[in-house]
Amino acid sequence: MNDPFDGASARVNHAAIAPLPNSRKIYVQGPRTDLRVPMREISQSDTPAAFGGEKNPPIFVYDCSGPYTDPDVKIDIRQGLPTPRQAWIEERGDTEIIEAPALRPAAPAFPGLARRPRRARAGMNVTQMHYARQGIVTPEMEFVAIRENLNRQAWLENLAATGDEKLAAVLSRQHPGEPFGAALPTEITSEFVRDEIARGRAILPANINHPECEPMIIGRNFLTKINANIGNSALGSSITEEVDKMAWAIRWGGDTVMDLSTGKHIFETREWIIRNAPVPIGTVPIYQALEKVGGKAEELTWEIFRDTLIEQAEQGVDYFTIHAGVRLVHIPLTARRLTGIVSRGGSIIAKWCLAHHQENFLHTHFAEICDILRAYDIAFSLGDGLRPGSIFDANDEAQLAELKALGELTAIAWQHDVQTMIEGPGHVPMHMIRENMELERQWCQEAPFYTLGPLVTDISPGHDHIASAIGAAMIGWRGTAMLCYVTPKEHLGLPDKNDVKEGIIAYKLAAHAADLAKGHPGAQIRDNALSRARYEFRWEDQFNLGLDPDKARAFHDETLPHGTAKTAHFCSMCGPRFCSMKTTQEVREYAAKKGSAESDALLRGMEEKSAEFVKSGAEVYRKV
Amino acid sequence: MNDPFDGASARVNHAAIAPLPNSRKIYVQGPRTDLRVPMREISQSDTPAAFGGEKNPPIFVYDCSGPYTDPDVKIDIRQGLPTPRQAWIEERGDTEIIEAPALRPAAPAFPGLARRPRRARAGMNVTQMHYARQGIVTPEMEFVAIRENLNRQAWLENLAATGDEKLAAVLSRQHPGEPFGAALPTEITSEFVRDEIARGRAILPANINHPECEPMIIGRNFLTKINANIGNSALGSSITEEVDKMAWAIRWGGDTVMDLSTGKHIFETREWIIRNAPVPIGTVPIYQALEKVGGKAEELTWEIFRDTLIEQAEQGVDYFTIHAGVRLVHIPLTARRLTGIVSRGGSIIAKWCLAHHQENFLHTHFAEICDILRAYDIAFSLGDGLRPGSIFDANDEAQLAELKALGELTAIAWQHDVQTMIEGPGHVPMHMIRENMELERQWCQEAPFYTLGPLVTDISPGHDHIASAIGAAMIGWRGTAMLCYVTPKEHLGLPDKNDVKEGIIAYKLAAHAADLAKGHPGAQIRDNALSRARYEFRWEDQFNLGLDPDKARAFHDETLPHGTAKTAHFCSMCGPRFCSMKTTQEVREYAAKKGSAESDALLRGMEEKSAEFVKSGAEVYRKV
Repeated sequence: MNDPFDGASARVNHAAIAPLPNSRKIYVQGPRTDLRVPMREISQSDTPAAFGGEKNPPIFVYDCSGPYTDPDVKIDIRQGLPTPRQAWIEERGDTEIIEAPALRPAAPAFPGLARRPRRARAGMNVTQMHYARQGIVTPEMEFVAIRENLNRQAWLENLAATGDEKLAAVLSRQHPGEPFGAALPTEITSEFVRDEIARGRAILPANINHPECEPMIIGRNFLTKINANIGNSALGSSITEEVDKMAWAIRWGGDTVMDLSTGKHIFETREWIIRNAPVPIGTVPIYQALEKVGGKAEELTWEIFRDTLIEQAEQGVDYFTIHAGVRLVHIPLTARRLTGIVSRGGSIIAKWCLAHHQENFLHTHFAEICDILRAYDIAFSLGDGLRPGSIFDANDEAQLAELKALGELTAIAWQHDVQTMIEGPGHVPMHMIRENMELERQWCQEAPFYTLGPLVTDISPGHDHIASAIGAAMIGWRGTAMLCYVTPKEHLGLPDKNDVKEGIIAYKLAAHAADLAKGHPGAQIRDNALSRARYEFRWEDQFNLGLDPDKARAFHDETLPHGTAKTAHFCSMCGPRFCSMKTTQEVREYAAKKGSAESDALLRGMEEKSAEFVKSGAEVYRKV
Repeated sequence: MNDPFDGASARVNHAAIAPLPNSRKIYVQGPRTDLRVPMREISQSDTPAAFGGEKNPPIFVYDCSGPYTDPDVKIDIRQGLPTPRQAWIEERGDTEIIEAPALRPAAPAFPGLARRPRRARAGMNVTQMHYARQGIVTPEMEFVAIRENLNRQAWLENLAATGDEKLAAVLSRQHPGEPFGAALPTEITSEFVRDEIARGRAILPANINHPECEPMIIGRNFLTKINANIGNSALGSSITEEVDKMAWAIRWGGDTVMDLSTGKHIFETREWIIRNAPVPIGTVPIYQALEKVGGKAEELTWEIFRDTLIEQAEQGVDYFTIHAGVRLVHIPLTARRLTGIVSRGGSIIAKWCLAHHQENFLHTHFAEICDILRAYDIAFSLGDGLRPGSIFDANDEAQLAELKALGELTAIAWQHDVQTMIEGPGHVPMHMIRENMELERQWCQEAPFYTLGPLVTDISPGHDHIASAIGAAMIGWRGTAMLCYVTPKEHLGLPDKNDVKEGIIAYKLAAHAADLAKGHPGAQIRDNALSRARYEFRWEDQFNLGLDPDKARAFHDETLPHGTAKTAHFCSMCGPRFCSMKTTQEVREYAAKKGSAESDALLRGMEEKSAEFVKSGAEVYRKV
């Protein structure tokens, strides 16, 4: 790879930037003119006349895809994205431009970046947690309050416009959830956001050097989030491929993206990704530090690591995975494991500790790390370097000892007002998932939990996105705030774009299932709308309201390729004769006509109904 | 389709019959010479010398694939499979050959079938439940006792042969499960099987006219089973395609197969499937009855339905879905649903009830149905015609009223000693799954539950195998005995062979996850063996021990196509420098050398270790 930019074209792959079908990007105006919260509006067709002819309101969904799906924004990845946060950061007046940025590699700089990096002015703390604890509601907090409320609020506002209150009441009906802890608030206010951040129960990852980022929040009282990992390795992929993968990942719903690059051009790859990322970017800085010492873990030093942190901080990384909980005393606890240490970061630290017989330098220098992170507002993602890599090792002594250490580190981070989340496993059988969440909440004082799956069995290589989506949905229900995706290639190879999408969709549906189970206000509207479309044979609406309209349409085309089949009043599964969906139309119409839904009243009228049904030709499949 | 046999070749598609890699079919000899229980032996390679050089014992797994994967059996689908049960059925002396079988369609008969159908002699009851209640242990019960025990028993027997008791002890270690109800027995005896069948907590579906079937059991104290649906429709597929799909489905782990054909040649399709099926075959007889009345539900009669039951009974169908719980009084309860009645059978019955304003004839004739079923030993799968078709409708009045009715019908079926299982939903959010299982156990007196998913969200068309595998794993943990698979095409189109496989693997892993959570004895051995292979970079073993060796290998090839990579001591995910797996080898070796696994002892030695580690070159990646 001689040219790291790989002849970078101005645009990402077209497939990643076209708006999704029947969708348009809209913005909700916040309390200041430069605060515009994006959402996706999915329009629906009218209910067929035979089903009542209602006009179906559009459905609004949370939108991670950034400017890529906005046809009004010109995308040029050599220039980077617009910077909605820049004014907010500058006007706080607590940061300064760095006159002498950290040494950067000599390779070609990102071409479009005119501004220079910032950091906190001396003595200042610029974290969202610090502001929150001062009682300050930042524009970032206002932004996420609107964003988290969108499903419900936009829907309710839309009711007045469409005027069909009865239909709206049906679509917004929802089962009471079963949150583990207090019930979720019915409306997310900016004050609630501030309070959750202040008490450490949520984080808003937003480096002051990442003004391109659209603010989002991670916490158990908000929508469950998912992370997608990208990144090249010694074995793979170019810079523009990684930018393309990032745009692709957020198109399908990645809330944050971790750049796990370990190969060459690690700095440049990250620069291109961040400048083009409207979502928070996370990294594992020890990967780059290890590259600097030629891959020899035992040659790592605090100084090399520290400089790496600063370098990445100045670039705009929003959260760092730091394996400070892998303590010297924990390492022998892994001796009897079946699969030892499976975290890359964890194994690097373990190797360093063994070589030096010293405490992990990330632990001994933890307060200094906090000082760096608070100067840029980078959140900790306290790494679970000792997470179990097999069902056998689940919830073992090593894992739990580290989790306890992460709780102690959280307390220190909070003393510095540094936002913190906790990484979790891994491989855990279903009945042992709940213990993970309960211990995390207890020991880490409700800091957001961020888990990788967990996989609920080890025996499904090639399908581990499914094995882990099961665990992810369950732990999400228990309150895990962000789910790190697993692709079908897990344990086997590097994910390509299709694998990234498959992993994201599996996790998006797991996260949504968790929101339904917790009873997140408004979460069920999308299910209701899609099911209603399904019941009324509005095929296009059914495709478009789903997580993957492209695949849904392609699957339908395989069986019934003709355009007219998209308005057919039967399912492709069964053919016209065996369709069940239309039968209870009869029942419903009857109930409506009688003006009563009481079973007794209905039964009294059933004899009459029977005669009428036969007289009308006993035909379920009427023409529209 | 002029030729319904579509020029049927003698063999099914080659891909369906080759043994899986490094696997061979073996048989465990039962208490009589003609009782040979199949299992699959997966051989493993030796541990590389650098990791200790152990000889790894083969792993034994439950095998649904029948004679297809046995190279010693000549497969000719025009002749059908061998008939292991024939002698057992005949020697009981309680059945007789039917001199005048039910009228069959004039289309070409199955060419290879020389025998004629049987039924119970007058006054005889030939169900496994009846035998069990008489205290009789049938060969079928002996068969399943060995089969359910295989993982553990064969493993333990194999220990003595390999002689490495320490390794075997590690691999057979397992987390205590969390069964909902009594703990699972550590050994499945034939007496235990008999008792579970006698009390109705398990069924052994085995029509006396399906002697090709290898007995299996469905009950919550046994391995969790999965069902795969196949079948043509008015829109699709030929007979040989369906036979091919059946062989394909059991290759990947389908424990039973339902033939849901609704199109032409419904009788012939079923005949070909049953004659070639080593697993129980289920049907929904009302589909065929409806074809007989030209698709007009209101023209169905008890007599037409009864004759259909007998026709299918004589063919050898092992269980019938019968929607006898859809009572007239329940139908109005669906009026306010979002998605009405989504079960095909349920909607046919509802339409009949509305047209006649009479009680469901399946309910009024239930005792007569029991009389038919017990004459052939066909199990009830009491259909959930009112299952919810959306999250909105989950656990509603209609669904629960029907479930209660199914419990009442179960009691009647048991009076006739007819084996019975209960069908369940559907679409249910995670936090409402448990209620389904608890009510089923209470109202249906622990008759086995057989659920379709449930899907935990409606918003994932194209990925509903995942949305439903989440619910399936969770409800399986709670004690659901069989999980009906959902393919990626659910709601959208007819599954092709690839969809069938994707659905099966998703469900196989969900069922296995449930077995781990329940603590099924021996379930974790396969996970442990696979994880150990992963840890030791035995790539081929890792592929072969998984549910889908073909896909695992293909994925690995995509990133590292060279054959030598299959012995590489690093993961394709990270490349050689960032591999974590080998680091703790150092820790383990040290612990072993000290002869102690106590943390304190280890720590005392760590300083010494540190010097030694550096002296040895601090090289994690040693050559083997």
